[in-house]
Amino acid sequence: MIKAGIYGASGYMGSEALRVLLKHPGVSVEWATSRSDTPIEHYHKNFYGRGVRFVKPSEAAPCDVVFFALPTGLTAEHCRPFLNGGSKVIDFGADFRLNDKSEWESVYKKSHADWASAQEAVYGVCELHRDEIAKARIIANPGCFSSSSILALAPLISENLIDLDKIIVDGLSGTVGAGDDLDLALHHPEIDNNILPYNVVDHRHSYEIEQELSLLAENKVTINFSSCYVPISRGILTINHCFPVRNAERGDILGLYKDFYRDEFFVKVIDIPKDENASWNYLPYPWVAAVSATNFCHIGLDVDEKRNRIVVYSVLDSIGKGGALVGIQNMNIMFGLDEKTGLDFFGIHPY
Amino acid sequence: MIKAGIYGASGYMGSEALRVLLKHPGVSVEWATSRSDTPIEHYHKNFYGRGVRFVKPSEAAPCDVVFFALPTGLTAEHCRPFLNGGSKVIDFGADFRLNDKSEWESVYKKSHADWASAQEAVYGVCELHRDEIAKARIIANPGCFSSSSILALAPLISENLIDLDKIIVDGLSGTVGAGDDLDLALHHPEIDNNILPYNVVDHRHSYEIEQELSLLAENKVTINFSSCYVPISRGILTINHCFPVRNAERGDILGLYKDFYRDEFFVKVIDIPKDENASWNYLPYPWVAAVSATNFCHIGLDVDEKRNRIVVYSVLDSIGKGGALVGIQNMNIMFGLDEKTGLDFFGIHPY
Amino acid sequence: MIKAGIYGASGYMGSEALRVLLKHPGVSVEWATSRSDTPIEHYHKNFYGRGVRFVKPSEAAPCDVVFFALPTGLTAEHCRPFLNGGSKVIDFGADFRLNDKSEWESVYKKSHADWASAQEAVYGVCELHRDEIAKARIIANPGCFSSSSILALAPLISENLIDLDKIIVDGLSGTVGAGDDLDLALHHPEIDNNILPYNVVDHRHSYEIEQELSLLAENKVTINFSSCYVPISRGILTINHCFPVRNAERGDILGLYKDFYRDEFFVKVIDIPKDENASWNYLPYPWVAAVSATNFCHIGLDVDEKRNRIVVYSVLDSIGKGGALVGIQNMNIMFGLDEKTGLDFFGIHPY
Amino acid sequence: MIKAGIYGASGYMGSEALRVLLKHPGVSVEWATSRSDTPIEHYHKNFYGRGVRFVKPSEAAPCDVVFFALPTGLTAEHCRPFLNGGSKVIDFGADFRLNDKSEWESVYKKSHADWASAQEAVYGVCELHRDEIAKARIIANPGCFSSSSILALAPLISENLIDLDKIIVDGLSGTVGAGDDLDLALHHPEIDNNILPYNVVDHRHSYEIEQELSLLAENKVTINFSSCYVPISRGILTINHCFPVRNAERGDILGLYKDFYRDEFFVKVIDIPKDENASWNYLPYPWVAAVSATNFCHIGLDVDEKRNRIVVYSVLDSIGKGGALVGIQNMNIMFGLDEKTGLDFFGIHPY
Repeated sequence: MIKAGIYGASGYMGSEALRVLLKHPGVSVEWATSRSDTPIEHYHKNFYGRGVRFVKPSEAAPCDVVFFALPTGLTAEHCRPFLNGGSKVIDFGADFRLNDKSEWESVYKKSHADWASAQEAVYGVCELHRDEIAKARIIANPGCFSSSSILALAPLISENLIDLDKIIVDGLSGTVGAGDDLDLALHHPEIDNNILPYNVVDHRHSYEIEQELSLLAENKVTINFSSCYVPISRGILTINHCFPVRNAERGDILGLYKDFYRDEFFVKVIDIPKDENASWNYLPYPWVAAVSATNFCHIGLDVDEKRNRIVVYSVLDSIGKGGALVGIQNMNIMFGLDEKTGLDFFGIHPY
Repeated sequence: MIKAGIYGASGYMGSEALRVLLKHPGVSVEWATSRSDTPIEHYHKNFYGRGVRFVKPSEAAPCDVVFFALPTGLTAEHCRPFLNGGSKVIDFGADFRLNDKSEWESVYKKSHADWASAQEAVYGVCELHRDEIAKARIIANPGCFSSSSILALAPLISENLIDLDKIIVDGLSGTVGAGDDLDLALHHPEIDNNILPYNVVDHRHSYEIEQELSLLAENKVTINFSSCYVPISRGILTINHCFPVRNAERGDILGLYKDFYRDEFFVKVIDIPKDENASWNYLPYPWVAAVSATNFCHIGLDVDEKRNRIVVYSVLDSIGKGGALVGIQNMNIMFGLDEKTGLDFFGIHPY
Repeated sequence: MIKAGIYGASGYMGSEALRVLLKHPGVSVEWATSRSDTPIEHYHKNFYGRGVRFVKPSEAAPCDVVFFALPTGLTAEHCRPFLNGGSKVIDFGADFRLNDKSEWESVYKKSHADWASAQEAVYGVCELHRDEIAKARIIANPGCFSSSSILALAPLISENLIDLDKIIVDGLSGTVGAGDDLDLALHHPEIDNNILPYNVVDHRHSYEIEQELSLLAENKVTINFSSCYVPISRGILTINHCFPVRNAERGDILGLYKDFYRDEFFVKVIDIPKDENASWNYLPYPWVAAVSATNFCHIGLDVDEKRNRIVVYSVLDSIGKGGALVGIQNMNIMFGLDEKTGLDFFGIHPY
Repeated sequence: MIKAGIYGASGYMGSEALRVLLKHPGVSVEWATSRSDTPIEHYHKNFYGRGVRFVKPSEAAPCDVVFFALPTGLTAEHCRPFLNGGSKVIDFGADFRLNDKSEWESVYKKSHADWASAQEAVYGVCELHRDEIAKARIIANPGCFSSSSILALAPLISENLIDLDKIIVDGLSGTVGAGDDLDLALHHPEIDNNILPYNVVDHRHSYEIEQELSLLAENKVTINFSSCYVPISRGILTINHCFPVRNAERGDILGLYKDFYRDEFFVKVIDIPKDENASWNYLPYPWVAAVSATNFCHIGLDVDEKRNRIVVYSVLDSIGKGGALVGIQNMNIMFGLDEKTGLDFFGIHPY
């Protein structure tokens, strides 16, 4: 059994990891921390009466793997003793995601406390970096928008099919993505009938998407990313728009995606119906509700052959495949387990 | 392995059973039926790309247990060949819930096709009828409001603490409870900012609640029940108001509930905070979100000692503990498995 | 033109009064206060670019009428100079609602700063106290649940038709009712798929409902009230359950309500369809969405003749007919205007 | 008084026109039609008890202006007798929006019944075509996405600032935009926690946006448009992405917009805060909730100077400024009224 700890489990991301790890057949959860005295079942009522307890951070000892779910900068401050104690580290935050220190410090507006760990870390998109993850000691779990957009664009980028300077991505996020810090914009009366644009240019996730896709392209990729919160709790949709640099036919592009993800259990390519007049009833589309609370990413696409544009839709859960659960997939790979272990449950319908 | 079939899996209830049975360690799902040619993954996008298939009803053969998820009256029409073929039957519908044929026909406004099965059936509230369920061949799975309200009121009834003529129950339901038949009232623009009263008196579930609680009371119990849809997808809250017939103190009543459900894994009694000025932050309340997509029922209560009223809140998921999942709990009991098998996963937070 | 001021307009209640008063043909808004330097159009984006400005409380001078939208206790502290300056006062808060000082201080857990004003104030349910309101200098605007429940029960109480000890009221509220103080329970991810019970017994509004209905009954009335937040922004539904003390037939009770409110423009009695099998499509029910952002109250009822219960549904907007807008109706009456003035706009569909 | 008729008022668009016209100080509503016998107050409960009645289409006689709210193609079939009877016509549908008949018939997949009317019609974006509207007899009211996107892009287009081949627009719509035809995708349990992509390329509104912006550019403009439904009832957000063809600084672009819309009452330009770390609390953003049920359009923008992209956010209500209410603004212009008449009410907060 892999002995696992969760450093920071009072928030949404840490508790999502805890929920799934507690039922993972190859894992024993040794501890989950909170600085507060409030019982876990008051924070996370899904644990009510189930005997789950927080420990204080001071009681957290190194074990086989430690998941960090902390505000930006704090994993870098706190992970070293665990690494020294022999733990592998999976960071749900942004501390280890960028390869360039000055860029990181500019984007996150603070100095970095442990750049050696950042340099050692592997960026945890399993579908692109499986071999390095298997050998890694430190995983930089990707940002939620980043996972969605990287998986959406990787096939096109890998085939040099699109204009790398003119990629537009709109990211729509459920409010779980904002975490549990209170803010008037997330106060229910304000957002219930609303859509909230935020970080409308130069979003932090742009940098890691650009970094990863540039590596794949062996060329500089520019991501023009904007984000909104929509009034759902879970789930992310990125809408990825690209201009093809050579003739692009719908059937070929769809075939490329099906090939690219043929062997990937957690990425499903959906053939969006072509006839715009068809009822939605019983037709396949990538729906965030279908992947909420799971480790799946559903991708669908279409090509406007008249206007020469490719649009790729990619849905996942910001704390599922876009967060805690892909962290567990990374753990499975790092420890040599079948990567589906503990993660192959179905989504929920209706969500 | 228990060989199971699901007769009627295109709707929400049948697909919920399928979702959980496919991961149940003691079950092999032999078939799930739909009359339509539409693939299951178009109805239920949570199954997308997972290799799950419908069969036609004509291909459904008897197996160890068959779950029926059909409109009222159709299980009675279709279950007999399966019973004759040696199958146990669990009906998610209302066909076998009432003990009095003329009452059934009056409430459901049709004649009953198989009253012998109704007479044989055991009403499937596990916490009250565990021994009979263990020996049963046919289970009448309770209505969603019924499960919530019966579990909420059973401790008070069993102790003869309340006025049996003056029980008031308000039931609030998520829209999954309405099924997938289209209706303007469930059309998103109509209900998104709305609360929909319906069946405001003489709700069909009243009869089964009265029947079961009268048996428990050894006396006639009257349930004054009203229902509303609220704009959430999953989950039910019943608010059960009672007038105590002798002195009722909060601590005693809470103690009674904790005792009554001490050994029940799926029913948790929550000690609602007494101080009305306390922030809700991090305080225990029965929340439907905490039990959505699970087999749990959370119960909380308070006593207005000044005005002499007991109020009991009971939350569960209408197609979870109030439907498909309690059906699986019943199956576990019928086949001698630990009743938690396949059902002990955690709820989701945030839902 | 009536010169009006709004003391406290950064919150939801004060801004709702401002929204409607700015278009009221008989009113000139002299000022609206906020202690903050934030422009009103950042708080309330519906005023964006419309030239509306806050003033500091210190700049607020007496005028013909002042609406107070302050936390409990603060109107009593601040209203006296305005009264002395010749202003009439309408308090949206609870400061002047109760007739018994020791009860007020016990319920609100503080000492009262100006009981003389409380004694002078008229409780502002227009339909019951129109004549006193016309002569009043101070109005205690009713609580939102209180308005809904008092209007629902007044006809039955006035005819001595029900058991005064056994009235049960469930109140469901949109989240606007919680105001704009941030609280984790109102954080969008927590409540989006949830129902939040709170103040489950001994709710503060119970006391004013009991006070008003006892006056009407000339007898002590007990209100057993419980409340929940549901995930809509605006609107309140109270479900009022009563046990008739003599034979009650549906047609008679409905006729009583239609008579009682025959001349009331803002209270509409809806004849809920009797056939429980009818589709909801195009059928009349009291729907909160229909009265949101208006001064209307819609009431519907049914009688369970078999079990001997009357249930009355009453919907209004917590900051409309249950708050700021009934305050404007009170103002119209106080100043001798047609009480519909500025308030006779239609609700919005779909809301 | 302008005598107005509404041809087709059982749907959301026609009833929204009716709601506002009934309170318009310069209008007398002569009739509003429905083919059904169902009373209007059962369709639109906001009219409950207000004495509003449908007439049959056969009873509709010509008057000064007739608003048509019909499925595509039917205005062309039904408007001629009203034109001949001296009525001006405002079509909320798509019948008269395109200038090219073969394009119309290809896009809408039917033959056009009255192309002479289409040729005569003026495209009703008031801010661009005010003079022609003043002289028009027939108005083609723009599509909801079209109004939002045209208003968002017109300043950039008019200054030749952007690459006309590479404009990307994501349109997010509340479900009112789908009308009242029932569809499983709009059934509440399906969409409540979901985002629904649809018409992912070659959306019908693309054609009218391209037509109008090409006229403005005096050059061919290509609009790459994709749309989603999000689970709100009212409101549209378009996110308009452009690549500048010469140096674009944020301050200049914002200044351009403020100048362009300086004299427009119904279009407000919002200066989105630049600091991405600022809390959303009390900061200006274009929010759909702020313009829901109004005739306002709020526009905000930002420039990614590092990556050379302009993004323009534009919010309006699909049946307000994007539908029925801009139709009334058009009517005001056609009849020489101040165009704000009957439309200058405030939005609602919280919506």
